[in-house]
This record gives sequence, C-alpha cells and structure tokens, in this order.
Amino acid sequence: MFLAKITVKFKKGVKNPEAQTLETLLARLGENNVQEVVCSKNYELVLAAFDSKEASCKANDIANKVLANPIIEDYEVQICELL
Amino acid sequence: MFLAKITVKFKKGVKNPEAQTLETLLARLGENNVQEVVCSKNYELVLAAFDSKEASCKANDIANKVLANPIIEDYEVQICELL
Repeated sequence: MFLAKITVKFKKGVKNPEAQTLETLLARLGENNVQEVVCSKNYELVLAAFDSKEASCKANDIANKVLANPIIEDYEVQICELL
Repeated sequence: MFLAKITVKFKKGVKNPEAQTLETLLARLGENNVQEVVCSKNYELVLAAFDSKEASCKANDIANKVLANPIIEDYEVQICELL
C-alpha cells in the first residue's frame, strides 16, 4: 500500500480569488503584516499498487484527469510506502 | 520575514463531502485501487514579524479566527524564516 500526497495549486500568473479575498479580509481585520497569501489543496490517497513506480503512475494519472485543471493548475505528487 | 504554512483539515469523524465524492467518482472511473481519500487545504502566508515566536502567534491567531472552523476542523502551523 502506498500513500500518494498530491498538491494542486494555481499556476503563476493565474488569479486566485480565494487568496485575493483573504488578503483583503486580513487587511480589513488589521493584520497589516501579511504580505502575500498562497492557497493550495492537498489530497492524500491510499493506493494499492505493486511498486512505487506504479503508484506514482496512477497518482499522476488521477491528478491530471480528476484533481487538477492542467490549463490553470500545477500539481506535485509525492509517494510514500505504508508499512 | 517569515513564511507560515497552515494546513486545515476536517477533524476525525467529521464527514468530508469532497473526499466522499472523489471516492465515488474514482470507483466509477474504474480506479478500484484507491482505498481512502483525505482532502485538506494549505495556506502559505508571508508575514512580517520580529521573531518566529511572534510569527507563530500571528499565524495561529489567523488560522483560528479566519482560516479554520475550530468546531469541525483542525489546523497545523509551520513557521520558516525567509532569508
């Protein structure tokens, strides 16, 4: 069994409405020390696979097809073996 | 300047509709090797602070007040200094 950690975030240059709203909100709340906000999503999948290569292949496939929109988002995949 | 990495996820026992939908969807798409899905959100804030203790204090305050709903969500804060 493998644990695939997939992080999905907007590509550089793509406007992120959630981060912009948070920046505005924090400024309104008086938190003037916050200079920049970046938001991303994490998915942890427990996968059955023969080896880490197969797990990585499956996780990349799922990230590309289901979790991320490759036009505006990037993703990173990390694989750890569950013992 | 400090980078605060804040991870917000549902507490154990709280139903996560996004993870459930993903599990159903992946099963329908024939990905029967996925046993479990956990979703969480990451926020990276660039903070101006005197030291890491002050940065940690501010980040915890923001996470508690703005980013997480403490009734159903847990959060973790990591602080790194930006050189």
